Amino acid sequence: MEAGEQTNRVTIDVNVRSQPDAKYVYSAIVLLGLPLLFWLGQTSFQTLQAEVPPDQDSGEDNQPRKRIRLDEVKAHGPDSESPWVVRGQSVYDITEWVAGHPGGEVILRAAGGSVEPYWKIFSIHQKQEVYDILEQYLIGCVDERDLVDGQVPADSIIDPFINDPRRDGKLLVLSATPCNAETPGEELRGFITPNRLFYVRNHMWVPSIEEEQYRLTIELDDGEEKTYTLTDLREKFPSVTITSTMQCSGNRRKHMTEHCGSTNGLQWNVGAIGNATWTGVRLRDVLVDAGFPVDAPPEEAKHAQFTGLEAYGASVPLSKAIDAHGDVLLAYEMNGSDIPRDHGFPLRVIVPGHVAARSVKWVQRITISDEESLSQWQRRDYKSFGPNEGSKPDWSHARAIQEMPVTSAITSITGSPSASQPKLMISSKDKKDSDVVTVEGYAYSGGGREIVRVDISKDDGKTWDQAELVPAENRGSKVWCWKQWRYQIPASEFRGCVLTVKATDDAYNTQPETHDAIYNVRGNLANAWHRVQV
Amino acid sequence: MEAGEQTNRVTIDVNVRSQPDAKYVYSAIVLLGLPLLFWLGQTSFQTLQAEVPPDQDSGEDNQPRKRIRLDEVKAHGPDSESPWVVRGQSVYDITEWVAGHPGGEVILRAAGGSVEPYWKIFSIHQKQEVYDILEQYLIGCVDERDLVDGQVPADSIIDPFINDPRRDGKLLVLSATPCNAETPGEELRGFITPNRLFYVRNHMWVPSIEEEQYRLTIELDDGEEKTYTLTDLREKFPSVTITSTMQCSGNRRKHMTEHCGSTNGLQWNVGAIGNATWTGVRLRDVLVDAGFPVDAPPEEAKHAQFTGLEAYGASVPLSKAIDAHGDVLLAYEMNGSDIPRDHGFPLRVIVPGHVAARSVKWVQRITISDEESLSQWQRRDYKSFGPNEGSKPDWSHARAIQEMPVTSAITSITGSPSASQPKLMISSKDKKDSDVVTVEGYAYSGGGREIVRVDISKDDGKTWDQAELVPAENRGSKVWCWKQWRYQIPASEFRGCVLTVKATDDAYNTQPETHDAIYNVRGNLANAWHRVQV
Repeated sequence: MEAGEQTNRVTIDVNVRSQPDAKYVYSAIVLLGLPLLFWLGQTSFQTLQAEVPPDQDSGEDNQPRKRIRLDEVKAHGPDSESPWVVRGQSVYDITEWVAGHPGGEVILRAAGGSVEPYWKIFSIHQKQEVYDILEQYLIGCVDERDLVDGQVPADSIIDPFINDPRRDGKLLVLSATPCNAETPGEELRGFITPNRLFYVRNHMWVPSIEEEQYRLTIELDDGEEKTYTLTDLREKFPSVTITSTMQCSGNRRKHMTEHCGSTNGLQWNVGAIGNATWTGVRLRDVLVDAGFPVDAPPEEAKHAQFTGLEAYGASVPLSKAIDAHGDVLLAYEMNGSDIPRDHGFPLRVIVPGHVAARSVKWVQRITISDEESLSQWQRRDYKSFGPNEGSKPDWSHARAIQEMPVTSAITSITGSPSASQPKLMISSKDKKDSDVVTVEGYAYSGGGREIVRVDISKDDGKTWDQAELVPAENRGSKVWCWKQWRYQIPASEFRGCVLTVKATDDAYNTQPETHDAIYNVRGNLANAWHRVQV
Repeated sequence: MEAGEQTNRVTIDVNVRSQPDAKYVYSAIVLLGLPLLFWLGQTSFQTLQAEVPPDQDSGEDNQPRKRIRLDEVKAHGPDSESPWVVRGQSVYDITEWVAGHPGGEVILRAAGGSVEPYWKIFSIHQKQEVYDILEQYLIGCVDERDLVDGQVPADSIIDPFINDPRRDGKLLVLSATPCNAETPGEELRGFITPNRLFYVRNHMWVPSIEEEQYRLTIELDDGEEKTYTLTDLREKFPSVTITSTMQCSGNRRKHMTEHCGSTNGLQWNVGAIGNATWTGVRLRDVLVDAGFPVDAPPEEAKHAQFTGLEAYGASVPLSKAIDAHGDVLLAYEMNGSDIPRDHGFPLRVIVPGHVAARSVKWVQRITISDEESLSQWQRRDYKSFGPNEGSKPDWSHARAIQEMPVTSAITSITGSPSASQPKLMISSKDKKDSDVVTVEGYAYSGGGREIVRVDISKDDGKTWDQAELVPAENRGSKVWCWKQWRYQIPASEFRGCVLTVKATDDAYNTQPETHDAIYNVRGNLANAWHRVQV
């Protein structure tokens, strides 16, 4: 199934009736053939300094540049064997880059013309490391005869983000379009993260759909399909509530970058994680209703693929999807309210214990298949590597991230009388004089493995003490949620120390000491001990 | 259920008809009240230098010692509130030690008399660290009037190990009675470990029973019981074969000891692990037959307890026992043959993905309960701790080890032309001149998590390369077995380097860099990177 085909299905299967102000967006998408545009936050182009307009007559090495007519550029469109794009007045042959583009072939949507209108919308591309790679593929400049007022005339597309919801001002925004924003550390102290402060990780725009118009299609391995309204789901199946932590594979990437140097992707601190109750129906129950033999699945049925309304796609092993104790839900409530639009309204797959990237939001189609989702988020991103693989890892051989490794973080330090406070993690209240400093944070492990201990060091790991684990009500077949922890330290010992935290889960797995030995260019699963120099 | 009660059940439930030469052993056990004597391999007494007979008139601090009549010692027997034992001519009040004895109250069997006859049989106690602790409890010496030829007259007991099987001479014996012996590294290179070379971890003697006399009793949470012969099990239920690695919680303890100092327990190197195919019936199926509602278990049913013929006991969470994909077996075959006596003949529980201590050998009773097994192996041993807990950890609060963390080891280095070869791991064949050295080993993770990468460093973790994972046939619902790996290194780079290995499983958990931050006095789960100085 190609990406383009999936996009067509959005309009056919789901019968999206957009909210009035969104219809232009959808029209634009259809007209411009702009499906699942760029896989985000992850690219690493190399090109010219943004401020320095490219010399149209010679490259940086003073080689004369070929002048190219726009008609010729247009001939190198999406269907060409050698696609070209224009940025500024420079022309790039991206043939070789297509295979390396983290977003896969969606980059071809810009082929034959200017990439800039797309980048204005997918603003995540507007940074130096993105410009940098593109420069590797420079082949010439646009012939002056085709310039208007010295510029390449660009068709514009309608902003698909225009209908995105408003977000809480406390969220720390890493990219605006699409929205990627993390929860400030001090707001992670509760067992439940409030909906309005829950981190947002969007790969595209936020779909707009009215509940009555929503349809979910289940496609079995034999091609049989069954479609459900939200009312069908609510009425036909028992409602189930679980507590589950959602965590981005890139949570704490910033720490790996600080320790190891460059990583590609959004530089999340400690807040690309949150914990909520999720209410919905079991995917297993719906599959049974759709005719799938969950207790004796055919051998060739190996994966459950999920596709969102905006065409994001991912999959999980079928064994997880049908596990009676796996608690995979089709959730319509988050913390007791309708799921907010940013988090998947009206229906989100919840795959507890797995990387949040598999908990597909705005899910509109579930396909039982012999293979993983073909999406770039399954096949090329959300994988991890090792330090030997450098900047060009072998994406095809690495295993897609599913269950998450054990991690922990310090999220707040309060009550300190005068110590300098680490950025992003300090509550400004409680700054009264006090003899005791309270350090708080979370610890989490995937696969339903409960955190059994959290260790704290004041001397960078030479000696350890144990933090208090905060009791909380877990709901579900396994422990899918994080553990909050608390540790008190005399103010006198606090000043100038390096606070280090590490956690152990019930399989007695622990975190690596530093990020050196788990370094990967994607900065995924940055779960080394968390250190804060006080 | 007390240990003593369990022992009585051995004769009642199972109707043990001992082999002729074993009946004296059992008679002796009943007569002398010597059930599940000492929990082994784990104690750490402190006492006098074995070679120096205690001064009967003054202690090491030259304080005069109380002279005690043997009648008074006898009054401090198993039922006394202050039990005493005699060693040499010294008398010890072990009241405080009973609670700390890793073997629990079984030490009381020796109370009121001499401990030495027991230690001659349970030879694991005959070492300095065991003598050392006992000395803390010295209260006096035996009155000269009770000595015969200057010695305390000791009753002797019949050796319960007399009927133990003969073992392969290649096994590396850590203790003879009970037998604890590991597989040499070079014999771990195959995916399947042969039965005769599979590591032996016995807590007591090896039970002798004829297959026809064997009975398994299932006791449900409501007290209902059902008993099965081996023929019943073979004929009533489908036969299932899985590949599963078994690993002792103490595997690689020696490495932790070498790095961190003292740990209590058998100093296993890399060979307290092995991989086999196990054939038997699903515990889940047998529970269904016995009337247990596996798909809707009562809330109070939380654990499946297993008791062996020799009264060893352990339990696993019920969720594992009844999981349709948990593959918990009652196995009667190991690698295609009847399970050898050392490994559980005629029936052994196999709990794949969990510490081998839960795969109870010679299982004779399975009890569904609201609590864990009361045995000391569940409640006091086979737990892990942290570096802050020192030599007196809080046994009651620590979680019993179930699923195992990720680990790896170098097991053999072959083809080296002249490099000095690390002890215990080198095949003496293949010592011909060669330009390439082949390093081999295993990597394993619990819970059915597959190993996805093995990294090798030649500079103690500064840079890494990847080892080749050896393909092998896994059988079972999950990947319960280890991964063999192989790495070739030019002989020129091999000399003088520190070879380091670490593994990553499919939840992307990795191993800790050193044993410092996971140090625990029991030396359990020593899964830091394995380093070999070449």
